[in-house]
Amino acid sequence: MKEITGGVCAAKGFLAGGIRCGIKPSSQKKDLALIYSKTNCSAAAVFTTNKVKAACVVLSENHIADAKLRAIIANSGNANACTGQAGIKTAKRMAQLVADNLLIDPSDVAVASTGVIGVPLPVDLIEKNIDALKQNLRSDELGHNAALEAIMTTDTKKKDIAVQIEIDGKAVHIGAMTKGSGMIHPNMATMLAFITTDAAILPSALNTALRQAVKKSFNRLTVDGDTSTNDMAVVMANGEAGNTTITGECENYKIFYNALEYVCIDLTKKMARDGEGATKLVAVKVTGAENEDTAEVLAKSAASSSLVKAACFGADANWGRVLCAMGYGAHNAGVNFNQDNVNISFSSKAGTVQVCKNGGSIEFSEEKAKLILLEEEIDIIIELNDKDGEATVWGCDLTYDYVKINGDYRS
Amino acid sequence: MKEITGGVCAAKGFLAGGIRCGIKPSSQKKDLALIYSKTNCSAAAVFTTNKVKAACVVLSENHIADAKLRAIIANSGNANACTGQAGIKTAKRMAQLVADNLLIDPSDVAVASTGVIGVPLPVDLIEKNIDALKQNLRSDELGHNAALEAIMTTDTKKKDIAVQIEIDGKAVHIGAMTKGSGMIHPNMATMLAFITTDAAILPSALNTALRQAVKKSFNRLTVDGDTSTNDMAVVMANGEAGNTTITGECENYKIFYNALEYVCIDLTKKMARDGEGATKLVAVKVTGAENEDTAEVLAKSAASSSLVKAACFGADANWGRVLCAMGYGAHNAGVNFNQDNVNISFSSKAGTVQVCKNGGSIEFSEEKAKLILLEEEIDIIIELNDKDGEATVWGCDLTYDYVKINGDYRS
Repeated sequence: MKEITGGVCAAKGFLAGGIRCGIKPSSQKKDLALIYSKTNCSAAAVFTTNKVKAACVVLSENHIADAKLRAIIANSGNANACTGQAGIKTAKRMAQLVADNLLIDPSDVAVASTGVIGVPLPVDLIEKNIDALKQNLRSDELGHNAALEAIMTTDTKKKDIAVQIEIDGKAVHIGAMTKGSGMIHPNMATMLAFITTDAAILPSALNTALRQAVKKSFNRLTVDGDTSTNDMAVVMANGEAGNTTITGECENYKIFYNALEYVCIDLTKKMARDGEGATKLVAVKVTGAENEDTAEVLAKSAASSSLVKAACFGADANWGRVLCAMGYGAHNAGVNFNQDNVNISFSSKAGTVQVCKNGGSIEFSEEKAKLILLEEEIDIIIELNDKDGEATVWGCDLTYDYVKINGDYRS
Repeated sequence: MKEITGGVCAAKGFLAGGIRCGIKPSSQKKDLALIYSKTNCSAAAVFTTNKVKAACVVLSENHIADAKLRAIIANSGNANACTGQAGIKTAKRMAQLVADNLLIDPSDVAVASTGVIGVPLPVDLIEKNIDALKQNLRSDELGHNAALEAIMTTDTKKKDIAVQIEIDGKAVHIGAMTKGSGMIHPNMATMLAFITTDAAILPSALNTALRQAVKKSFNRLTVDGDTSTNDMAVVMANGEAGNTTITGECENYKIFYNALEYVCIDLTKKMARDGEGATKLVAVKVTGAENEDTAEVLAKSAASSSLVKAACFGADANWGRVLCAMGYGAHNAGVNFNQDNVNISFSSKAGTVQVCKNGGSIEFSEEKAKLILLEEEIDIIIELNDKDGEATVWGCDLTYDYVKINGDYRS
């Protein structure tokens, strides 16, 4: 596997583009994106678990039901959430506009929105600009970049990746883009992830692969504990690479899955690193748990704790907060661990320091710990020594800028 | 019922005091408190649900088992949590020192600690100063104030109350103090609450009353989503008021219960108002839910949301975040509400403005909303219009100062 350029356009047969249609107020930023496959695709998607679902989520859940897609239209600046029946009509209209322009079936269009909640989405702006959007479609990295810019909100960095693998001697590509910075929490954040591949793969195998990869990546990401109304991760596979169709638990499936997981974890880390106001990527790694689910629960609780996050910001080796967060996380989820077996270390490229042994304090150099925690990428390593369950959760620190960004997001 | 002065010493037969023994580093603040009843007490207590429990919690759970207490010793500056078997020995030693000095049984002493986790508690400092602490016991408000000062950590305000009620023509008093500012979340926060009363009441009735009052107050308080290892609420009733012993669901029980609930809710609001870095008290009031538990779940989710809290700080009428938080809270807890029936208003002494009707946006004056949200006490009023369950949860805004305080708490 090697990383390549091109983003979602790295996969053969995909076009992408992005323009400004005017939904985002008071800026000249792009706000409307389109990704399109020239040929039919297998498709799979995962959506927010929030009971309050945006209109586009309701519609796209419906459109993915037959495991086929040809295009994704996405806007930023307005979430089309809490907008009632009018919102559903708007989402349908977006799909229809794409279908009419690209001469495809509206049920083969996924619709995604991100932005402010509770404000009607001015679909007339999309209607006026849909032809321009189509004219802007390109099969190269410029098309990818334009689409990516158009889905960003408070994101400060582009988050994308493309990889190439070999299956049956054929070059197979996976390209992806994501947005997401605030309101990010398992399961699914205010994040949109659009993944393209030219692999030939059965819809059922694609669905299994996406769900498994999302479980190990996007669902182990936390920025602020808020799960959005609008999240979705969509993958489209058009088979243009010409490999023998991947059917399930064969060797080729494993090659494909590993690449997909790599892509999703890479995007997860990029989102955590670009968490609203974040100065640090914090990976919480739990090993030795009763099972993988327990490891995930405990890692999530530590990575989500405002106090742990604030301590990371302050480069303070406050391991008691880590253990405390594991304790209430275990209570809330009804899982167990043996407190007396817990070891905790902090690690970064500046080194590693153990700060807790068998659930209690040990002597360590505060100076060394400070140097380790001043780095931009920190690992909190928790050894439970119970059994062999393990999981990593990615988060970030809690900073002044998080408060600043979210104290006045709407205006 | 009327509010009176005196705090925990307002109840007849109680003494209190507080001194500095040196546990709190680099300050001249008091750090050791004692509350003592001259006569035997019925007692009840509620403790943290965190699976990682401080040594003092483990010990005090044991000491309360017979529903009797005579004294509470509490220190600040060190939580005696994650301190292993040595920590248990330390907590026992604290109880024994009180018992030896006051000539009572060590099992009649509750022990409480608050402060940094994972550092051995220097019990020798308590041993050296236990006699001075006993000498400082007083039966008036000065004793109460000294004890209260000695349990405060990042608290910026004293949080206490005392009330007088009449039962059987006798004056009955309830006095209380609490500390708690950060790491506060249902169920039980890093909060200590010590309540005294001279009511005569059976232990079983006292226990029922405390649990019910805590459910309606302390367990509906959230500051930052972190549930501490050390929380406890303890009530001692010595019967010195001379009323006929309250036995259970009689009229006198109701009078007593209402006063106890009033005291607990008052302290809850004071803690939320003094949340770390908080500039505002935010009460989230849900009515019309399927039942009280559903109302509580939804109110907690909204009050706990970092995004809702940051919007309160910024005086931004961002009701979409409120509805969004209700949506993921409902998913996580497995409860339901009808999104299309939801009305949301913001209210304060500057007025009331409805911002959401039937789950969607309505026109409102942003200017008026801003004025309402600039007040120091804000109500977020959520009408579900399903059935008649209701609950109020108290929280605060998320501010720069929260990050500042917690980015460098240990040092």
